[in-house]
Amino acid sequence: MGVGVLKMIRENGALIEARAGRGVEVVAVSARSRDKDRGVSIDAFDWADDPVAMAARDDIDVFVELMGGADGPAKAGTEAALAAGKDVVTANKAMLAIHGQALATAAEDAGRVLRFEAAVAGGIPVIKALTEGLAGNEITRVMGVMNGTCNYILTRMESAGLPYEEVFAEADALGYLEADPTLDVGGIDAGHKLALLSAIAFGTRVDFPGVELEGIDRITIDDIRQAADMGYKIKLLGVAQLTERGLEQRMSPCLVPDTSPLGQLDGGTNMVVLEGGSVGQIVLRGAGAGEGPTASAVMSDILDIARGTRLSTFGQPAATLSQAKPARAVTAAPYYLRMQLLDRPGALAKVAAVLGEAGVSINRMRQYSHSAATAPVLLVTLKAARADIARALNGFTTTDVVAAPPVTLRIEAV
Amino acid sequence: MGVGVLKMIRENGALIEARAGRGVEVVAVSARSRDKDRGVSIDAFDWADDPVAMAARDDIDVFVELMGGADGPAKAGTEAALAAGKDVVTANKAMLAIHGQALATAAEDAGRVLRFEAAVAGGIPVIKALTEGLAGNEITRVMGVMNGTCNYILTRMESAGLPYEEVFAEADALGYLEADPTLDVGGIDAGHKLALLSAIAFGTRVDFPGVELEGIDRITIDDIRQAADMGYKIKLLGVAQLTERGLEQRMSPCLVPDTSPLGQLDGGTNMVVLEGGSVGQIVLRGAGAGEGPTASAVMSDILDIARGTRLSTFGQPAATLSQAKPARAVTAAPYYLRMQLLDRPGALAKVAAVLGEAGVSINRMRQYSHSAATAPVLLVTLKAARADIARALNGFTTTDVVAAPPVTLRIEAV
Repeated sequence: MGVGVLKMIRENGALIEARAGRGVEVVAVSARSRDKDRGVSIDAFDWADDPVAMAARDDIDVFVELMGGADGPAKAGTEAALAAGKDVVTANKAMLAIHGQALATAAEDAGRVLRFEAAVAGGIPVIKALTEGLAGNEITRVMGVMNGTCNYILTRMESAGLPYEEVFAEADALGYLEADPTLDVGGIDAGHKLALLSAIAFGTRVDFPGVELEGIDRITIDDIRQAADMGYKIKLLGVAQLTERGLEQRMSPCLVPDTSPLGQLDGGTNMVVLEGGSVGQIVLRGAGAGEGPTASAVMSDILDIARGTRLSTFGQPAATLSQAKPARAVTAAPYYLRMQLLDRPGALAKVAAVLGEAGVSINRMRQYSHSAATAPVLLVTLKAARADIARALNGFTTTDVVAAPPVTLRIEAV
Repeated sequence: MGVGVLKMIRENGALIEARAGRGVEVVAVSARSRDKDRGVSIDAFDWADDPVAMAARDDIDVFVELMGGADGPAKAGTEAALAAGKDVVTANKAMLAIHGQALATAAEDAGRVLRFEAAVAGGIPVIKALTEGLAGNEITRVMGVMNGTCNYILTRMESAGLPYEEVFAEADALGYLEADPTLDVGGIDAGHKLALLSAIAFGTRVDFPGVELEGIDRITIDDIRQAADMGYKIKLLGVAQLTERGLEQRMSPCLVPDTSPLGQLDGGTNMVVLEGGSVGQIVLRGAGAGEGPTASAVMSDILDIARGTRLSTFGQPAATLSQAKPARAVTAAPYYLRMQLLDRPGALAKVAAVLGEAGVSINRMRQYSHSAATAPVLLVTLKAARADIARALNGFTTTDVVAAPPVTLRIEAV
């Protein structure tokens, strides 16, 4: 990660100085291993064995934290730097998703800034767009496909017609997955990012535990194919909205129309959608990971500091962020249900009756021809509350015609 | 235009104060007519008959210029405000495209800022993305569909199968066109915007006369249909690149792949594509015009000023902007040629021979069946210099088989 920043400073020194009005110089570096081959020599810089001690050096202005990890040296270094009167730039979504309020407060108490453009959606300047570019708007919704690995897996499953397990193994072999892959495929990494965007968008304290998380590991190739057949793509989509009943934050597989910008997003690219009362819908697209895009975002924060721009971490003073109550999927939406019906007379009638009793209306239904003892049935409902969908799912268990719990996916209006 | 800003300040006062750390208050307004029904009362504010005098009032911090026009009261007011020590926020692309260097210098001499987020691509925070979000990058190319009216006309021609003249009349009736429609369909308005983006991207003085302009008025429904048949869409696309031979700025109808984000952009929406050495490709999409989006961009500039952010107008001091030589389409590209061949034996051979002599290779060719005395022929070339294409076009005139000058459109790799 750090190598990209070293390269940018070396290669673009003149233009950085022209734009910032002053040069940016690397004083010291620290890393797990000094001798690792980085493709870039770090011999010209002071070496520090201890990043936390380095963060408080007298001769630096900014501590750039690219180690990762919610705690450990990343957090200790950030705290040490702020306490010593340094500004901090970090790419650490996990640390901010968990300790964001405390660290933002520490930064403000110290009169320093803590910036994190690289923590969300890689090179896309989304923190800046939200914090500054749309600052006059009441933000109504934030959405995003913010884990490139998951989007790669889902689009590769579709294009190659391969099952989840096989594409997961491919992604692993290509080095696309985190050491703990549930960070990716379980939606945790993307959930961290959503929690950070929510805080800025709605002026609320970062609430990662309030993000409802659901991974992509139960998505099958049949789900993808049959969603496509109905005109949808499946995306691991983050959605945040401040509702009358609280702050709704979801990171889960959703269906989106295949003709929408989100539906057309293939491969490892990220996309963030910001909606504001005056601006309408703004869509931002770009590389969400990688050395260059991450370095670009880090440099944006460094240049802001060099230019004298001073902003609160989450766009307003930490003490003024409100504590929103988490609301779990309170906004209604159409749902997609895929189920296997046992081959018995009246089976479909029973399913329809259960839905009707739960107050869920059917928009579209398809039953596919079958040779096995069960028939695949797809349903798209009209807008329904999730509680009503849950009641219907519960009702199915009391019938004797639904072979297994249906696959249930929300259809997000984008 | 100004009404949207008044509404945002009124409706979002509390969140603006939370985000900016101070309130934003409208002190005085001026407009052509005081009594026009705006849907918002302006009675609460001081009225000024003379905007230029208003701009220099002692009791204001910021002059917000939303009158338009490259000269006249817009320019006089901007100059008066800067001279009186006020910051200026403007949406005036024409004024900045023509007087940008002088006004940026005046702002810096006065120690004030001159900001113009609303001048380019409406609500999309593209000036901020380029000036700040990608500030560490060497920018390699900037592209954009930045005139919603032209994009509306082109997509409506395709979807409704209507000729240019008819859709132009529709757009006029809907009030989509400027009083002088050549500002829209001649590419001038979008060219102004491109010139502003170029200055920031490449650190060069704004050079609107250096923008090669070509409008959409000669695009026919046949061009659109036959481009679609080859997998392309026609867009009024701005492209700026700093090449070894100078600054290339083009605003012209181009073909883009129909599966690309630019190709999928329908209707009045704008899209800007920014490419940087480290960040790769960033795509920004949103409403390019309208009261709300424009107000959102204006408020972003006002909030930056309220927060104490101070930036040079074009991202670096005006005196450090270089004077780039204009370069006219020096980068090679594939071209699309549509021509009518007279129905004579050997006609196609003659065309192919002329292209070969000009050093232009054919990638794809289609001749359509015909009942008239001429046969429609479509050609897609391999990458070629425009000078070679021009030589081929000239060569066609010496044959006796090409019925009229071919339609020639560049295919931009996006």
